[in-house]
Amino acid sequence: MSLPGSFGELTGLLGKFPGVGQKTARRMAFFLLSADPTWVSSLAESIANLRERVRSCRECGNISTDDLCGVCANPSRDRRSICVVESQEDCVAMEQSGVFGGLYHVLGGRCSPLEDEDVPAESLDRLRRRISEHGASEVILALNPRIEGDMTAFLVQDSLKELDVKITRLSYGLPVGGSIGYADRVTLHIALESRREVKEEE
Amino acid sequence: MSLPGSFGELTGLLGKFPGVGQKTARRMAFFLLSADPTWVSSLAESIANLRERVRSCRECGNISTDDLCGVCANPSRDRRSICVVESQEDCVAMEQSGVFGGLYHVLGGRCSPLEDEDVPAESLDRLRRRISEHGASEVILALNPRIEGDMTAFLVQDSLKELDVKITRLSYGLPVGGSIGYADRVTLHIALESRREVKEEE
Repeated sequence: MSLPGSFGELTGLLGKFPGVGQKTARRMAFFLLSADPTWVSSLAESIANLRERVRSCRECGNISTDDLCGVCANPSRDRRSICVVESQEDCVAMEQSGVFGGLYHVLGGRCSPLEDEDVPAESLDRLRRRISEHGASEVILALNPRIEGDMTAFLVQDSLKELDVKITRLSYGLPVGGSIGYADRVTLHIALESRREVKEEE
Repeated sequence: MSLPGSFGELTGLLGKFPGVGQKTARRMAFFLLSADPTWVSSLAESIANLRERVRSCRECGNISTDDLCGVCANPSRDRRSICVVESQEDCVAMEQSGVFGGLYHVLGGRCSPLEDEDVPAESLDRLRRRISEHGASEVILALNPRIEGDMTAFLVQDSLKELDVKITRLSYGLPVGGSIGYADRVTLHIALESRREVKEEE
């Protein structure tokens, strides 16, 4: 048999989540069927309204419910240190590890010629403006330890070459081939502690 | 930082799914944030309306969109064989495997004195009525191979003792595709006890 109408439909929809296969989707659907109705309706409402309630911080580009995110609005954060990440997900992973006390900058893209992706020029312009405005002394590149991350790092480095700012990069304490979103706290901490300055070749 | 308002709330709600931890929930929430809006709204609607659209078949108790489920309403199913399962989820798993052509009966509970669970008496009454009505010749117990499954099997068996019907149970043994090296002691013991003679072709 195929699953009955609405139930089969829901299972199909749930199966679109990354990493959720047919059996997991079915299990989730059955869980929804018998779970606390308050939770179920909160979940449905939260999913439906997510996009209108969550926006990007106008400064750093991270997810936020206001015009400025909690990090940018916090006066006790060190404005002289800016951590550059590829995506909002990476930004949240860094921040939740609690190892960094400065500001973030979400590029909103990565350099990947093969997949025809690039870092938005607007984001790089904004990064340069923020560095000048805050008088930042260090830009930390927290980019994924992959070839695209390397290319993105070169791109950011190149776009900052006129500015008098130290550029460092998280060390390869990160497991090569992994992604920042899934790194554990200790690995992130070690990678931050052992960051190295990116030297211009002379 | 804690995650901003609505986003953190959604992550918390998603983390209630069985087997979904904090990181997976976050990943799902970010996926929802950037996914196709049509899919997102369909999903929200499907979750919100699930309970009113899906009900239980009045005969077998499996999930259904109508009064009678697809299996019970199908005249070509063998009415003389009834497969007893604990839950709707087990029923769907059996049916999707495509190995059984009879009817089902969902008990809607299992016998577990430790967790204060029991099989609803109404379900056993209905099972007896269905066996008589269909003139069923065999009841197959497809109950989980655990102590609760064993107790549930005894209970069903006991409640059918007045009826002239053959009662069988799914066999125990090594899972096909598994390996002896990874099988647990009890499974190996049962597989040995219920070994079968390999017949020479004559």
